[in-house]
Amino acid sequence: MALARIARNGYQQSGGATGRYARVGSMLGEESSSVSKSHSPFSGRFTAFQQNVKPHSSNLPFFSSIGGLPAAALGSRGVRTTPRYEYAHAQAAVEESDSECENLKYPTLEATKPGEKPRVVVIGSGWAACRFLKGLDTKVYDIVCISPRNHMVFTPLLASTCVGTLEFRSVAEPVNQIQTALAKEPNSHFFLASCNDLDTDKREVFCETSTDGGETHRFKVVYDKLVIASGAEPLTFGIKGVEEHAFFLREVPHAQEIRKRLLLNLMLSEYPGMSEEEKERLLHCVVIGGGPTGVEFSGELSDFIMRDVCQRYAHVKNYIQVTLIEANEILSSFDVGLRQYATKHLTKCGVRLVRGVVKEVHPNKIVLSDGSDVPYGLLVWSTGVGPSKFVKSLSLPKAPGGRIGIDDWLRVPSVEDVFAIGDCAGFVEGVGRPVLPALAQVAERQGKYLVELFNRVGKQGGGKASSGKDVPLGDPFVYKHLGSMASVGRYKALVDLRQSKDAKGLSLAGFVSWFIWRSAYLTRVISWRNRFYVAINWATTLVFGRDNSRI
Amino acid sequence: MALARIARNGYQQSGGATGRYARVGSMLGEESSSVSKSHSPFSGRFTAFQQNVKPHSSNLPFFSSIGGLPAAALGSRGVRTTPRYEYAHAQAAVEESDSECENLKYPTLEATKPGEKPRVVVIGSGWAACRFLKGLDTKVYDIVCISPRNHMVFTPLLASTCVGTLEFRSVAEPVNQIQTALAKEPNSHFFLASCNDLDTDKREVFCETSTDGGETHRFKVVYDKLVIASGAEPLTFGIKGVEEHAFFLREVPHAQEIRKRLLLNLMLSEYPGMSEEEKERLLHCVVIGGGPTGVEFSGELSDFIMRDVCQRYAHVKNYIQVTLIEANEILSSFDVGLRQYATKHLTKCGVRLVRGVVKEVHPNKIVLSDGSDVPYGLLVWSTGVGPSKFVKSLSLPKAPGGRIGIDDWLRVPSVEDVFAIGDCAGFVEGVGRPVLPALAQVAERQGKYLVELFNRVGKQGGGKASSGKDVPLGDPFVYKHLGSMASVGRYKALVDLRQSKDAKGLSLAGFVSWFIWRSAYLTRVISWRNRFYVAINWATTLVFGRDNSRI
Repeated sequence: MALARIARNGYQQSGGATGRYARVGSMLGEESSSVSKSHSPFSGRFTAFQQNVKPHSSNLPFFSSIGGLPAAALGSRGVRTTPRYEYAHAQAAVEESDSECENLKYPTLEATKPGEKPRVVVIGSGWAACRFLKGLDTKVYDIVCISPRNHMVFTPLLASTCVGTLEFRSVAEPVNQIQTALAKEPNSHFFLASCNDLDTDKREVFCETSTDGGETHRFKVVYDKLVIASGAEPLTFGIKGVEEHAFFLREVPHAQEIRKRLLLNLMLSEYPGMSEEEKERLLHCVVIGGGPTGVEFSGELSDFIMRDVCQRYAHVKNYIQVTLIEANEILSSFDVGLRQYATKHLTKCGVRLVRGVVKEVHPNKIVLSDGSDVPYGLLVWSTGVGPSKFVKSLSLPKAPGGRIGIDDWLRVPSVEDVFAIGDCAGFVEGVGRPVLPALAQVAERQGKYLVELFNRVGKQGGGKASSGKDVPLGDPFVYKHLGSMASVGRYKALVDLRQSKDAKGLSLAGFVSWFIWRSAYLTRVISWRNRFYVAINWATTLVFGRDNSRI
Repeated sequence: MALARIARNGYQQSGGATGRYARVGSMLGEESSSVSKSHSPFSGRFTAFQQNVKPHSSNLPFFSSIGGLPAAALGSRGVRTTPRYEYAHAQAAVEESDSECENLKYPTLEATKPGEKPRVVVIGSGWAACRFLKGLDTKVYDIVCISPRNHMVFTPLLASTCVGTLEFRSVAEPVNQIQTALAKEPNSHFFLASCNDLDTDKREVFCETSTDGGETHRFKVVYDKLVIASGAEPLTFGIKGVEEHAFFLREVPHAQEIRKRLLLNLMLSEYPGMSEEEKERLLHCVVIGGGPTGVEFSGELSDFIMRDVCQRYAHVKNYIQVTLIEANEILSSFDVGLRQYATKHLTKCGVRLVRGVVKEVHPNKIVLSDGSDVPYGLLVWSTGVGPSKFVKSLSLPKAPGGRIGIDDWLRVPSVEDVFAIGDCAGFVEGVGRPVLPALAQVAERQGKYLVELFNRVGKQGGGKASSGKDVPLGDPFVYKHLGSMASVGRYKALVDLRQSKDAKGLSLAGFVSWFIWRSAYLTRVISWRNRFYVAINWATTLVFGRDNSRI
């Protein structure tokens, strides 16, 4: 039982890519270099195979370990990836000597039998997972998708839902619409549950969900191939009070809570006997983090204030204020010209830009590192993402920064048939390439690459567990950045089509960019239904203004 | 302090008319005659003025008491309507001898001064309140609306939102869009709060709201004229377990919860190791009450099952079942031919109709009075409405059944300048007319009647507190039933245009009725924005099916 480990809280809220660069370090200056400093405890152990890596060979065996080393050999170097599972009941019970016994108590989706299609288990329902699901050849594979939410979130448009520009449902796409086999094929399933743990020896995924009634269901699923795409979690840098008092902006329920709080504060501030000071506090919306999410949310908020608050909350319109706090530059991944444009435009729209580092968060105020207090009524925290509790809990090889380590073919080294994509994955040091940013486009491209690889190998009979070792892998995954976009409110946006910060290329800002931004997103939204609704929402917001019912 | 009374829990969830007949008594047979049995303790006290009632005189003084008796005279007969207020802190504190002192601690919207417009305070944001708000002449009056929700719910379409035919927001109309003065006029306000108590002597309304953070705000508002339109609450007949385990269907959050539970159960039932019995339980949707709400919800549900569950939850489609339990006849207010049509159609659509009386509700099963158990996964309770805790707590005259008593001009007898409309109000016995059903059309008609009366009197200078005694009231309120409609699912509906159950008139069922039903509701939806969205939602449901993201 020495290896027994519990990670029941893992992967509760994640599951989606941010669609944004995880600007680790940009926000809190010297305090926040977790990506570059905190190397994985495993990273040192891969020196042996690092010399064996041949990233551009296109003829490596498929599902075996990196560099030709057999999984077992690597595993014996201390990268044992088979934690045994211990579940809640067992904690209270007297010590049991055999965890195998406990496992038997779990309802199980058993291993596929010979003659059945191989089963791919996908953990997550974000950009990477959904792109993978969408493309999987269901004639070759059965699919099981496990996620605590039954939809994908179109994250780049989530900020717009907080103020009512878009409806929540317009930015959510049901998973079983993205891949209809999940709903229809007899051996494919979607399970609404959180993953707690893996047993890569037995090829088991442990899942759990709690219903509203408090009942907890646990089960396990055996895989032939496993794709981990469980996403990341917002970084709080251990700052006191963030988890308790700040809102994140990564899931639809987050946006719903922000919207409710904003409308509540607008109405509370109208109460008889509210002091001027209290009104100002209630209506002070503070955004921490000047990345695309923070900037877009600030822009939407200022737009909402200028257009809708003035009309619909005229009594308190002079008290509302948006402040964006950032330790360094806003939109640091963009061109300097675009950054200046954004700064000027946001300031013109009434957003106060403040340079500062947050020290503590209290229920009604933030304390900055210079000792000053910032009272707030609404606090939105968007300082990038880091590894989730679930990812941290796994005894898999890790990439610098704590993500699950992957090789050039998105395989997790040292374990058989396990892949990781999206925000939860990063190249292990041995690959010699930097960890890619936590962007929707990275996640989507990885999903696309991996599903093509799966389909190719599956057709050649390599889909089953431990099979496919002789199937060539093809080209390794190469990421080419297509550029970045960010809206800054009031019909203005930035578009930066350079491949990197120092490369040459088109970058523009203003109304045309805004038009490109809208059109690009409209075509990227997955289903026709949501494409239609996003367009309709935009049109009705223009004609009727934003809806402000607090539901 | 003898009169001190606390009713802090009153009026938390209500505020809207049902849009449905409160079928008290039809559901549970002999147990449920609360309307006819439980007479108000005050009803006997009005014999004195009952003889003075002249309902068709159109020249009565405006805001004085019914029948020409001065308010004070009636008040002294024991109908003292001035409970003093005691708030939570005071409970813990040592006994204070003077409740006047306590009142001083409340932030207050003080009485209007001479020269200012008179202030009408409206409690509620349902059909009655919103029709009143919409029509009020804001050149004559300032308005304060107090409600725990900032929108009106288009209740007849609420059942459709539970399964995703319509969006939640399409059936909700923000109050400050219905009456823009609430948002713009300097002395008009909307307060998101629950009303706890009244002091009709001092003309004060006591309000309270709790924020998500647990902070409680209390304040009071002084009125010139008060309109109580706080709605009713679902009747549970004191049956054990209903409040805890059943869902009601009267507010948007109710519909959201029903939807979440339904989708959760569909996904849970797919878990590995679920027994056949447990799958059947999880997917057994039980509706209690065969009134229009219950029937429409059952119809929508069966439509959802036939069209969407088969497509999107094919693994469990054979386990889902809808049962409608009713003690007597379904749709008892409709024509016998229509009832038979509905019964036949629902049965054809797979809805099981059961006659039974519920004895107890447990977390996973219902016990009927014949001793049989009905296991369920989702339980929706729609057996009509009765007086809310807030209404029960008020020391105002009551109508038979416990609603606030009103006279022919919708005034509350014995108190000055207090009116009541909608589901919370009913004629006092002295009027000699039966209490009207809790229907949206009754509430709306009362709102319309009262606001015209207010506008007329206000223009003649009778708007201020205690003024307007010499202004003629005009004709009394007369209700003319326009007919009933109910959809029964799968493009079929019933339309009954008879004025009463025994009168002659048009009644029809089928597709044409369904078309009339849709068109009628589409034109009744208040704003163009929502009219547009309802139409769009219907169209996309037809084309793409219902959305099933669980948000």
